[in-house]
Amino acid sequence: MRDSEKSIIQRIRQLSGEGGIARIPLAIGDDAAILRFPSGHEVLVTTDFSLENVHFRRDWHPPESVGHRCLARGLSDIAAMGGQPFAAFLSLALPAQLPQKWVDGFLRGLLTLAKQHAVTLAGGDTAQSPGLGSSAKILVDIVVVGSAPRGKALRRSGAKPGDSIYVTGTLGAPALALEALLAQPRKKLHPNQYPAHFYPQPRLAIGRYLRDHRLASSMIDLSDGLSTDLHHICEESGVGAEVVAEFIPRADGGTLEQALHGGEDYELLFTAPRDRKIPRRIAGGAVTRIGKIKKGRTRVLLLEGLRRRELPAGGWEHFKKSATGLHTSGSL
Amino acid sequence: MRDSEKSIIQRIRQLSGEGGIARIPLAIGDDAAILRFPSGHEVLVTTDFSLENVHFRRDWHPPESVGHRCLARGLSDIAAMGGQPFAAFLSLALPAQLPQKWVDGFLRGLLTLAKQHAVTLAGGDTAQSPGLGSSAKILVDIVVVGSAPRGKALRRSGAKPGDSIYVTGTLGAPALALEALLAQPRKKLHPNQYPAHFYPQPRLAIGRYLRDHRLASSMIDLSDGLSTDLHHICEESGVGAEVVAEFIPRADGGTLEQALHGGEDYELLFTAPRDRKIPRRIAGGAVTRIGKIKKGRTRVLLLEGLRRRELPAGGWEHFKKSATGLHTSGSL
Repeated sequence: MRDSEKSIIQRIRQLSGEGGIARIPLAIGDDAAILRFPSGHEVLVTTDFSLENVHFRRDWHPPESVGHRCLARGLSDIAAMGGQPFAAFLSLALPAQLPQKWVDGFLRGLLTLAKQHAVTLAGGDTAQSPGLGSSAKILVDIVVVGSAPRGKALRRSGAKPGDSIYVTGTLGAPALALEALLAQPRKKLHPNQYPAHFYPQPRLAIGRYLRDHRLASSMIDLSDGLSTDLHHICEESGVGAEVVAEFIPRADGGTLEQALHGGEDYELLFTAPRDRKIPRRIAGGAVTRIGKIKKGRTRVLLLEGLRRRELPAGGWEHFKKSATGLHTSGSL
Repeated sequence: MRDSEKSIIQRIRQLSGEGGIARIPLAIGDDAAILRFPSGHEVLVTTDFSLENVHFRRDWHPPESVGHRCLARGLSDIAAMGGQPFAAFLSLALPAQLPQKWVDGFLRGLLTLAKQHAVTLAGGDTAQSPGLGSSAKILVDIVVVGSAPRGKALRRSGAKPGDSIYVTGTLGAPALALEALLAQPRKKLHPNQYPAHFYPQPRLAIGRYLRDHRLASSMIDLSDGLSTDLHHICEESGVGAEVVAEFIPRADGGTLEQALHGGEDYELLFTAPRDRKIPRRIAGGAVTRIGKIKKGRTRVLLLEGLRRRELPAGGWEHFKKSATGLHTSGSL
């Protein structure tokens, strides 16, 4: 039997229990949390759903991975702004029959990642999930609040023609894991073999470095897939882009298609003026130049040897549709 | 047929479209929204689920009411802190078969209330709701962000023995509507007949007045019901309370039980030192003294004529259980 909702709240309050610290004078236990920001800073806010059978599957993902992934999505959004995260809010609706063990594992996964990045769980909401029996699903919505010095947060809209395009890390490993899961849906994958899928690491230190050193002109995190996310930068900046297939850093054993369209990489994609010197490694992570920003139409071209083809914003869609019964989604 | 998720995002972006204003330099369309707060202010954050068949029913509540109610819950939390709301974030998961008309009505209800309180819809997330056919439910999570001058937000924890206890408005009308719905589940109630249930008004102006004039020692909004919410104040303040049954302002036609335990009143419950002069009306709303704070054990006593009985924190539970198949929930 699971703890009642009230006990879950008390449990979360104990586990996170950081109200009263200087920057968060009031956390869980009142009508709203109170957050205090350094003066001269702007507040960054992002929210992300993690819904069972849409963003994860209970038979594929251990609860620790679900907790980790749902917070990682929000942290990665803050990383993409060059921000410093500092509080999270968790809205959690659970099926009546869900074992307490699942909830404990979920919270452990979430709070372990939170602690690594000095993020306090400062509030949220709990409810019983609608639906009876197995039609009731685990529903999570996570809010991450962070900050950046005024006017310094990195946006999607700053790319200029001539800028170079960079990505961090390697791409396609989460897609590779997803395809392995889809190929044998009943076989459990070991999370240690596919850490990029089960425990993605948000690139917060790299994002902050780029902001601190004013290196990037625009930035986004790779959640929908390189092809789609590069389109987002082009749309918001009113530019086009050209990327070189062989420059794209692929994960071991991964295909070009997985690197281009896989999604959920949670690496950073950014642009920088051509004369800006970008280190090959930042905060321990590789940084690779993959192409350049072009004037005019907001389209993305892929150069493959002597071929040049248009890369449509497809990305994640293709995987999602087959993946978990699913679905399209998108941040506002 | 409904717009695709991408179109829904574009639609919301158009409808809210307030990015670029001074306090919200960046809203929908990036990895995170950027909010700018006046210096010397603290940031207030609250999140609230509104789940189909838990917090509302599609056959009972018109979409405009669902949109209004989900935002009203968050605004009422900010009111209870004496805060000024200014941005909302909407996470919205929809069943594949949901008509576009429903979504439009929902957004209309939400954005009309937002506009009344100068709140900008600054971001969020969209997804398809998990489950097939009618087992897929409408899932909403709303975040409201507000502010208050540093150190001035009103908490649940400031009540002192001897303080008087006050409520705004009248209590029990939403419970009365809910009982009418339960009595004849297939009959539609007309929202105009039960505005307190279908279109509750968050008491933001009253909350701010109390904060500005430093009148209240503690405050909470009545979402779980007077009996439960008064217990919350007692627990957080480490005090007891005594309320007088005949002082409690009941809605027309409502019973004492509905006023005590009904919940979803979204009125304010606050305490103030005895010598503090509290106006009988604030910002057009009635304010009624209903009892006083006592030393010692965190229990609530009800005086009814010559009888004195303990009032357990029951509140909303009783209604919820019968109401919508439901369920317990609680804010973190």
